Amino acid sequence: MSATRSAKYVGDQSLLVGDGEVVTPRAGEVRLDVAYTGICGTDLHILHGAMDHRVRRPAVIGHEMSGRIAELGPGVHEWAIGDRITVMPLEWCGNCPACQRGHSHICQRLTFVGIDAPGSMQSSWTVPAGLLVRLPDGLALEHATLAEPTAVAVHDVRRANLVAGEKVVVVGAGPVGMLVGLVSRTVGADVVLLEVSAERRKVAAQIGLTVLDPVQIDPGAYVDEWTDNAGADVAFEVSGSAAGVDVATQVLGVRGRLVMVGIHSAPREIDLFRLFWRELTILGARVYQRPDFEQAMQLLRDGEIPADALISRVVPLDHVAEAFEALTHGSVVKVLVDCRADPTR
Amino acid sequence: MSATRSAKYVGDQSLLVGDGEVVTPRAGEVRLDVAYTGICGTDLHILHGAMDHRVRRPAVIGHEMSGRIAELGPGVHEWAIGDRITVMPLEWCGNCPACQRGHSHICQRLTFVGIDAPGSMQSSWTVPAGLLVRLPDGLALEHATLAEPTAVAVHDVRRANLVAGEKVVVVGAGPVGMLVGLVSRTVGADVVLLEVSAERRKVAAQIGLTVLDPVQIDPGAYVDEWTDNAGADVAFEVSGSAAGVDVATQVLGVRGRLVMVGIHSAPREIDLFRLFWRELTILGARVYQRPDFEQAMQLLRDGEIPADALISRVVPLDHVAEAFEALTHGSVVKVLVDCRADPTR
Repeated sequence: MSATRSAKYVGDQSLLVGDGEVVTPRAGEVRLDVAYTGICGTDLHILHGAMDHRVRRPAVIGHEMSGRIAELGPGVHEWAIGDRITVMPLEWCGNCPACQRGHSHICQRLTFVGIDAPGSMQSSWTVPAGLLVRLPDGLALEHATLAEPTAVAVHDVRRANLVAGEKVVVVGAGPVGMLVGLVSRTVGADVVLLEVSAERRKVAAQIGLTVLDPVQIDPGAYVDEWTDNAGADVAFEVSGSAAGVDVATQVLGVRGRLVMVGIHSAPREIDLFRLFWRELTILGARVYQRPDFEQAMQLLRDGEIPADALISRVVPLDHVAEAFEALTHGSVVKVLVDCRADPTR
Repeated sequence: MSATRSAKYVGDQSLLVGDGEVVTPRAGEVRLDVAYTGICGTDLHILHGAMDHRVRRPAVIGHEMSGRIAELGPGVHEWAIGDRITVMPLEWCGNCPACQRGHSHICQRLTFVGIDAPGSMQSSWTVPAGLLVRLPDGLALEHATLAEPTAVAVHDVRRANLVAGEKVVVVGAGPVGMLVGLVSRTVGADVVLLEVSAERRKVAAQIGLTVLDPVQIDPGAYVDEWTDNAGADVAFEVSGSAAGVDVATQVLGVRGRLVMVGIHSAPREIDLFRLFWRELTILGARVYQRPDFEQAMQLLRDGEIPADALISRVVPLDHVAEAFEALTHGSVVKVLVDCRADPTR
């Protein structure tokens, strides 16, 4: 067996790639051979120091992954060595008011694995078996890394109660924005994305999404014409920007629903008069629940999510710094890190 | 018959009381003998010039009323002279996207009678028969003037999908805030109101509501203790203030619902990180639908809304300026204007 490797965030905008650690699984745990780990916007935030208040360094990050079970801890009977899996990276307490009310995904003491606990950017990873999600037959390991961000999109669309025939505006066409657009289309909605970056617009158009430049085309006028002055039924704010919040509020029709997907660390001004006038609803949406994850994997397996088109590049773990660099400059959509200790497997 | 009288907003923060006009009802209309008209916060805004962009002067204002039918226009068969009524002051177009989708109360071409069309602060008033709502037996004319603001509260509570046992925070204990608190209690919710004015707190306490001074008591700490750290299920923002929006957002637990009742003419900063973190929902609520009005009247008739305690004073139409003065200085809750041409009837 080859030596294990890991990438650790050590602070100072730096990742250190070196020898990894093989952690023997305790009762209820499994050790995984990680195949691939996708890099998420949150990983970029961590690297840039924006989450130093939360992340204990050195930290192995990463939470979008796929792999196989390498070793079973005591008491783990539902799984077998070699099983193809991904991980739903949420650990909840089961006792807080959120958990007691069935909202364990937003547990008041939630551990997000890969942020608050060691993540998957390493060749050997030990996690509680309860976090495992079995890959359906026919879903490639590379594609399965998209289960996590796709589950985010499935959750967002479910929060909106989106139904067939509704008109949807997605503000921001990064990976999550594109996934929200794609998942909305699987429900039967008509979708338009707004994106200021020409490179992202190009990718969105390549996978068949309708995408506009809100600098060139006035979104309000466009939506008015598109909807015969009714306004959009649902908007997803995925840009994380103040301008995105404004646009998303303005394009909605009466009783329109606005799902806040992007993370806004600063308070944002909202046009509450319009919220009142049109009886809008604004919904917060955070991570996902297990049914979202299951549905995400089905959409990937069935090709409803064109995983190959979204994965710009696969880099070996030793080159992970380059991947973060490319993502920081926005020249790629989704980059996978090949974490396999033995890439020939 | 005595001469009719009316109070007209003529601009320059002035109301002119003088001879009214008897308008013969056309087809589908009725002429009403107005008994009482309640003064609403919106009427104050109009008097203070804040709605001059919308109100054509001179304007008879007023939209919270009760009275009797005095004359039937051609084709009105469902009503009889002498019927005790109130008016639901909304006229919709029936054709716009909002109306077509069953949301006629927020019609995109809505006429709010008493703002966009002549109101009830006059002894004789002619309106479309479709706006009439029959008073149930046992509901006094004075109390029936509260049907309109109570319908607002019923609509707000319905927008929240409030259920028995939930914990509710109402920010602002003016007339609508108190009504929202009272209606929430009829659903079986536990209610706390927050109000900075000592006079309003006194009235709220007198009618049996739990009311706190958010300057003296930290609302967040209070709600944490009250709810065993779960946070409130529902908050109603009725203050119209930036501070009210902040408090309402901070006291909510996971999946909490915030209904924006107060009108915020300027954009407000909202803590979207908390919205995301706790998966909150913010709902705009505007006016009411006919079932809200019907339910409001039943609550008033059954004494669930203590109308006498909320009505601070009844003034004759000729003294309407004094009533507006008292309301502007906040020393009264609800003031009725006696609009009867012949008060002995």
